[in-house]
Amino acid sequence: MPIQAYAAKAPKGRLETFSYELGPLGPKEVDVKVTHCGICHSDQAMIDNDWHFSAYPLVPGHEVVGTVAAVGTEVHGLKIGQRVGIGWQCGSCGDCEYCRIGRQAYCAKERDTIVAHHGGFGERVRADATFAIPLPDALDSAQAAPLLCAGTTVFTPMLHHGVTGNTRAAVVGIGGLGHLAVQFLAKLGCEVTAISSTHAKDDEARGFGAAHFIATKGTDELQKAAEKFDFILSTVPANLPWNDYINALRPQGKMVVVGVPESEIQLNAFALIGHEKSFGGGRTGSPAEIETMFNFAARHGVQAQIEKFAMKDINAAMDRVRTGKMRYRVVLEA
Amino acid sequence: MPIQAYAAKAPKGRLETFSYELGPLGPKEVDVKVTHCGICHSDQAMIDNDWHFSAYPLVPGHEVVGTVAAVGTEVHGLKIGQRVGIGWQCGSCGDCEYCRIGRQAYCAKERDTIVAHHGGFGERVRADATFAIPLPDALDSAQAAPLLCAGTTVFTPMLHHGVTGNTRAAVVGIGGLGHLAVQFLAKLGCEVTAISSTHAKDDEARGFGAAHFIATKGTDELQKAAEKFDFILSTVPANLPWNDYINALRPQGKMVVVGVPESEIQLNAFALIGHEKSFGGGRTGSPAEIETMFNFAARHGVQAQIEKFAMKDINAAMDRVRTGKMRYRVVLEA
Repeated sequence: MPIQAYAAKAPKGRLETFSYELGPLGPKEVDVKVTHCGICHSDQAMIDNDWHFSAYPLVPGHEVVGTVAAVGTEVHGLKIGQRVGIGWQCGSCGDCEYCRIGRQAYCAKERDTIVAHHGGFGERVRADATFAIPLPDALDSAQAAPLLCAGTTVFTPMLHHGVTGNTRAAVVGIGGLGHLAVQFLAKLGCEVTAISSTHAKDDEARGFGAAHFIATKGTDELQKAAEKFDFILSTVPANLPWNDYINALRPQGKMVVVGVPESEIQLNAFALIGHEKSFGGGRTGSPAEIETMFNFAARHGVQAQIEKFAMKDINAAMDRVRTGKMRYRVVLEA
Repeated sequence: MPIQAYAAKAPKGRLETFSYELGPLGPKEVDVKVTHCGICHSDQAMIDNDWHFSAYPLVPGHEVVGTVAAVGTEVHGLKIGQRVGIGWQCGSCGDCEYCRIGRQAYCAKERDTIVAHHGGFGERVRADATFAIPLPDALDSAQAAPLLCAGTTVFTPMLHHGVTGNTRAAVVGIGGLGHLAVQFLAKLGCEVTAISSTHAKDDEARGFGAAHFIATKGTDELQKAAEKFDFILSTVPANLPWNDYINALRPQGKMVVVGVPESEIQLNAFALIGHEKSFGGGRTGSPAEIETMFNFAARHGVQAQIEKFAMKDINAAMDRVRTGKMRYRVVLEA
């Protein structure tokens, strides 16, 4: 049976109906029947070929929630009908040093859900069973969908950089990623500062758990926050006044970017050296880390604030994402 | 009694005899009679006012080894005649959050040995007792002098970034700092790669403990070292092909610079994000960290390879440092 889906057939194209054959199921693979799929900024970037590695027809969608519809002969631990999520990565070799230690993101043969592979804007998604991650019962499918990319992208750097309740943390950008980052940090016990261009989202950010709010546009609020933060997470895909942010780090503080800015990042060496500050990149987690995040979100009630669209209204949903005005994430329902 | 010393009286000046009064000894201060003093690249930078905060007359010298000559009324644990070292920092408030946790480098009132204070190119140096650090008997005074700045500058990032014997480490620049970094890393149990512009120091670097050597000038050896290192320490005060070095980091790898490059550092965001790499600055350690380094160096026979000059030949010694050809550190003897 061919799979019915929505695909961009050329860069920046509208999404059109598209059908394709999944072919025979591999022994370690599963098929997931899509019930919900979040729309991520990187779906838009892939449709538009912003990163120059898109392949068309391109079926976007890498915040997939659904139920297991088929399991390969060597799959253990997943059952037909079980609720799972699939995120950015859908496969890896399973044998290399990174796969063996549960850091599949670094596998040289890692495969991604919407890179030369068809994603969640359709009836089914295929993945290695390792990358179909069971959802705790406490998580609502629609609200959990954005955790599969937005959530893990902000949560994983917190794991990797040892964020604890004593970490003075700031989140740059209060959007799809940022509104989850503020929630995770607050529930980890941090004193959280939300940073946005204006004060428009001040009240909402405090509702997500922020204790403080900085607006950067036309103010000196960021400059006044010198040496305030142990950890700054930037979720915005934009060039920022990097040295003002380094200045806002406390000694041994770390800034991590998960959004890809347009240009190279320029840093003043003295500002890094004097108080041993550092700057790095963060990305989505491994399956085990996504499972850790699911459990944390379930225990603490972390959930995305979403706008729902029917899957058939995919182009209206994409238009909404392109405005950047959604609060805070768009999720498609099958 | 006035102190006899050598001072630069203007930017880039030759060192001239200079005498000054130390004034009354504070209750928590000590005076140290200088027996040896290393010459550091930053002495030259301060003489030349490269960093725009030099004050003249300027007595350089912040790799001081000597004996305690006077102790304040509230000093405990240091005795007249005891052998100690003084490095870049000579004082701090003692009361702030950073002083209380032994991270005096971050104290807002930290004072430096050659910044508006007279250093080790003379008979005596005054310091807060906390910053006069006892030397283990096993360390030779002349060979230990460079540990006070060069040594702690490379050793402290190893402490702060959790370097262990399983860390695949590289050192950029095999000079005063680098030849100590290679020794420390090798004695910590690491597989060490030395990186220099040419292969001229290949044999010597292996003698210090390097297992591998990369020459960068006119070769593709660095480009071929993709994803090889968990930790790269750059000791050179120069602009480097930063993204080639980021490329040479393994997943979650860290590059730390302790030399100040001429220009801002430019980094490609994708290169940082994909495999969660980071980039940071490192600096000299706190008194407790210098003591840890002394003990490690004493246990493992880490010592600087030096060229000795008599203190009275200070200008010949500075000329030697300015050539950059010393192997590997110049030390003055009183």
